[in-house]
Amino acid sequence: MRRVAEDRRTVGEVGEDELLAMVFPILAVARESDDVTVGPGDDAAVLRLGAGGLVATTDAVVHGRDWRDDWSTGMDVGAKVAAQNLADVAAMGARPVALLVTLVMAASTEVAWVLDLARGLATGACPVVGGDLSSAPEGVLTVSVTALGALDGRTPVLRSGARVGDVVAVAGTLGRSGAGLVLLETGRPEADPELVAVHRRPTPPIALGPVASSAGATSMVDLSDGLLRDASRVAAASGVCLDLAWVALAADAARLDAAVGTEEARDCVLGGGEEHSLLATFPSGSAVPEGFRVIGEVRAGSGVALDGIPQQPRGWDHFAG
Amino acid sequence: MRRVAEDRRTVGEVGEDELLAMVFPILAVARESDDVTVGPGDDAAVLRLGAGGLVATTDAVVHGRDWRDDWSTGMDVGAKVAAQNLADVAAMGARPVALLVTLVMAASTEVAWVLDLARGLATGACPVVGGDLSSAPEGVLTVSVTALGALDGRTPVLRSGARVGDVVAVAGTLGRSGAGLVLLETGRPEADPELVAVHRRPTPPIALGPVASSAGATSMVDLSDGLLRDASRVAAASGVCLDLAWVALAADAARLDAAVGTEEARDCVLGGGEEHSLLATFPSGSAVPEGFRVIGEVRAGSGVALDGIPQQPRGWDHFAG
Repeated sequence: MRRVAEDRRTVGEVGEDELLAMVFPILAVARESDDVTVGPGDDAAVLRLGAGGLVATTDAVVHGRDWRDDWSTGMDVGAKVAAQNLADVAAMGARPVALLVTLVMAASTEVAWVLDLARGLATGACPVVGGDLSSAPEGVLTVSVTALGALDGRTPVLRSGARVGDVVAVAGTLGRSGAGLVLLETGRPEADPELVAVHRRPTPPIALGPVASSAGATSMVDLSDGLLRDASRVAAASGVCLDLAWVALAADAARLDAAVGTEEARDCVLGGGEEHSLLATFPSGSAVPEGFRVIGEVRAGSGVALDGIPQQPRGWDHFAG
Repeated sequence: MRRVAEDRRTVGEVGEDELLAMVFPILAVARESDDVTVGPGDDAAVLRLGAGGLVATTDAVVHGRDWRDDWSTGMDVGAKVAAQNLADVAAMGARPVALLVTLVMAASTEVAWVLDLARGLATGACPVVGGDLSSAPEGVLTVSVTALGALDGRTPVLRSGARVGDVVAVAGTLGRSGAGLVLLETGRPEADPELVAVHRRPTPPIALGPVASSAGATSMVDLSDGLLRDASRVAAASGVCLDLAWVALAADAARLDAAVGTEEARDCVLGGGEEHSLLATFPSGSAVPEGFRVIGEVRAGSGVALDGIPQQPRGWDHFAG
């Protein structure tokens, strides 16, 4: 188990006030911001935003479902839940301005884990302006994050704006988180530590969200549940077909070959989740901004295709047995 | 058990997509708003706010800690978690504009309970613009809410602004939620159903938050943890003493006498939690706005006093054994 060996006391032993006194300094560096007028400690945080609109999103992770303690430290969990929320903000073309964090945990939770979580949240470089600590029965540990972003006058980039003739482009890696998970599941994390690191702490290209928006992106989404599945959501919302070209994805798969084999590598690139890279469409003829690469085009039709052949993305239901 | 007898299927049997298809119409009425440009369904919601600043707060409730199924329906839980978040927004002098809701639950959770929860959230009359459903191990059920509010150009009302000579005023009831809890704990809910109703679904005077701000409130807080305890927080943040007058509170206690007895009634008024009424200070000489009544004054010193006698509010720690 990878764990900071600093404070083996439990949250119940330390108490809420002392715990917060330890957590706040960790988050303090990230709290300084022109956008934040009042940080944690009052009834609510206060943000100063220009009249350019605000985006808001929320996403939670649950111990035993979304992470395992033998695979992920508290810092990994904090960094990942921050990244997945910030990627949602970026995918609207917005600039992240604040996080709110709710931690629901049993009194037996180790203080060291909580401090480690705070360090992970701070890696998001987005101020944590509020939160809530709630006690829960033994065995419960969930982290809920809300992320707020400023549009700074830009028009939000929705899933529904892809138009026939647009190019499809991606910013960030593909399949690495999924391949890292395969390595963990098969007990071979040492086979490619970089892939495992992406699974533990994805580093999506947050800053490219506003860049894509300014460059005229017609639609955008972050890749939470896999390239084909998230592309199919854009296709459905826009009433078009996203046709991807394998030639543009082959290098992504080749990167994973040695670690997981050719077939699994392809599956990871097309279906691997939790990468949080940005998938966007741009009008044909416009320059795709630096950091994005073209991987397909938008055609009339529906769904998602690969080299013209319709694909059926695997389903995913949180509550399926 | 008070439960809507409409759909005994579980969340696991129905699946995420069908569940959302059932929940959205319940929230739809509340979703229409001038402030909301894009509601649920994209990577993030989009809000249109004037350049008057934004407040943000978050608060979670946990099954088995914050509510019991034999005392509270899903609708009660939804209404209460909305109310407590909206009260935090109001206590900053802001107007609630949006909620985000994260529901972490086991697959065995009944669909009927979730729909009931949504109905309760909708009673807050504040649009639910985003959320997250996460699966959890058996026995886990938590609801996290983030509330966003618009200041509409008003200055946020902090806890730290109370000044010597100000009057202390309250809007809303006192002690009723606490007395309702006593009735539930002693198995006598029928002794005063109105008190029990306040405990199940507090109805704080949300609209009076902005009113207080416009009237010049120097500090404000919502009563989450009891009058003395929350008043002591204002006192600490402002560096003053809040001296309350029992004569102004006696009628609140008298209302509870018949249900819980004189001594308990006093304890409920001074220490009962979850009422979410608004406690504010106003400059002496200014008119206290309609809906507020004066219950004390701000003196030099520290802490909270009753008729000049210092009071020691009971502590509360989420993680104490």
